[in-house]
Amino acid sequence: MIQNSLAEIRKIINDEIDATLPVPETKEARLIEAMRYSSIGTGKVLRPLLAVTVGDLMRLERQTAIRIGLAIELLHTYSLIHDDLPAMDNDPMRRGKPSNHIQFDEATAILAGDALQTKAFEVLLDPKTHEDPSIRADLAMALAKAAGAEGMAGGQMMDLVGEKEPLNLDEIERMQSLKTGALLHFSCVAPAIAVRADKPVIDALTHYAKALGLMFQITDDILDVEGNAEMVGKTLHKDSDAHKSTFVSILGLQKAKELAKSLRIQGKEALSIFGDRAAELSEILDFILERKK
Amino acid sequence: MIQNSLAEIRKIINDEIDATLPVPETKEARLIEAMRYSSIGTGKVLRPLLAVTVGDLMRLERQTAIRIGLAIELLHTYSLIHDDLPAMDNDPMRRGKPSNHIQFDEATAILAGDALQTKAFEVLLDPKTHEDPSIRADLAMALAKAAGAEGMAGGQMMDLVGEKEPLNLDEIERMQSLKTGALLHFSCVAPAIAVRADKPVIDALTHYAKALGLMFQITDDILDVEGNAEMVGKTLHKDSDAHKSTFVSILGLQKAKELAKSLRIQGKEALSIFGDRAAELSEILDFILERKK
Repeated sequence: MIQNSLAEIRKIINDEIDATLPVPETKEARLIEAMRYSSIGTGKVLRPLLAVTVGDLMRLERQTAIRIGLAIELLHTYSLIHDDLPAMDNDPMRRGKPSNHIQFDEATAILAGDALQTKAFEVLLDPKTHEDPSIRADLAMALAKAAGAEGMAGGQMMDLVGEKEPLNLDEIERMQSLKTGALLHFSCVAPAIAVRADKPVIDALTHYAKALGLMFQITDDILDVEGNAEMVGKTLHKDSDAHKSTFVSILGLQKAKELAKSLRIQGKEALSIFGDRAAELSEILDFILERKK
Repeated sequence: MIQNSLAEIRKIINDEIDATLPVPETKEARLIEAMRYSSIGTGKVLRPLLAVTVGDLMRLERQTAIRIGLAIELLHTYSLIHDDLPAMDNDPMRRGKPSNHIQFDEATAILAGDALQTKAFEVLLDPKTHEDPSIRADLAMALAKAAGAEGMAGGQMMDLVGEKEPLNLDEIERMQSLKTGALLHFSCVAPAIAVRADKPVIDALTHYAKALGLMFQITDDILDVEGNAEMVGKTLHKDSDAHKSTFVSILGLQKAKELAKSLRIQGKEALSIFGDRAAELSEILDFILERKK
């Protein structure tokens, strides 16, 4: 059951963050408290689950897979903290509790996001992640490409532009492939990088990640319209309130749901080269399609 | 002449940034424009000059030293963009022109800073920086330590705390050693990491960097009180207006100047193991002590 796997990974990641971010007794303690506040908790750790599940498929050392998951979760948390800022989505609620800038203040939230990004690179580059420095360098480089202007940050910029001028379907697809897709792709491919997998393996994981990422965003748009705010744990109807173009606003609810289903099929087809060994990756597709939060 | 070296390095770094950050034709172009706006220009590139000068002393390949300098300048620019935000120092002017969030907007400025940080790691991890991936990993790890919660971001947090409660001299010294000292230290030590220099060499450069970093902050505090705003290119009297404790507010102008002079002597002593070959590093100490901006 994916829910059980998520709960198990959540506990492991919380323990890892706790060990990685000890609170010092000096005056900057507030920064580390803010970093911990948003990263330790109940967030659904889908990305670390993907890293660990692909890691198992690749027969990667568990510790390496978990540290890849840790780095991803720190980086993802940085992006959430900054996205919630008043100048960005201005969202007071995240994961069922006050957003970082509400709990602390804007300056601290900006800095906490900044330092979480740095820490994600530090985690990957630490010898604890992998004994081979060339693999550490490759992992960190792949994270940089996923997170930066040609990845997540570029997608966030497109999203902001989309508040002022409507995006068409191709642009929305590209926006999401950068904003959320790039880090999901890293989550699936990083464990393969860590075992220096062959190109067919990397390609299959890339196709899987692309289908999963697009499906994830479409189901996110559907939840924004149909979901239960308390269950989802964040403010809903944000996109329609902000007059943003989404998959649902362009395709309509019915066609968006059909597209999500066909992406599940594409995702499963991509896994075929792994046979039965990819059962849990296949289940993750079902889980995302059927999620209520 | 340091002024000539700075002008030469400025031109090289501008060209490198131009090549590293091409503006795409897609909707996120605004992000890259904002990244270029604050990083290409007339900033004094002291940190890249240190990297290149130490690089020459270490007989490091010029290209590696320049790419270290490029990464430092991108990271430094990210910190300036975020420091200037309304929630932080709320400074509308930087390097003689409107701050990033004034020229663009707050959301774009936050993202531009975020993506500049990412790009700094990408630059170091690129094989163009060094053919040996273990050296690339070591460089990126050292940058992460200098930039994160135990370095620059931690110092910025202490600085924010210092606006609400007075810091004593030890705390101000620690704050500056993190906020500006850590990246200056990286600038001096990274070229030695890149040639796998011996411990005595790293230690000497560390002592030099510490004296230089502290002297840099003290002269900054002095300029904040005595400087000419047009020449310095940023808003002055910020610290006294914000009732921040500074070296000048605690020691007084005269003692602060004496401390800066004694740090110049300490910095030069640290260079003694290099003999005449460190003449330019010695000149940089003079240049910082005597700077008018």
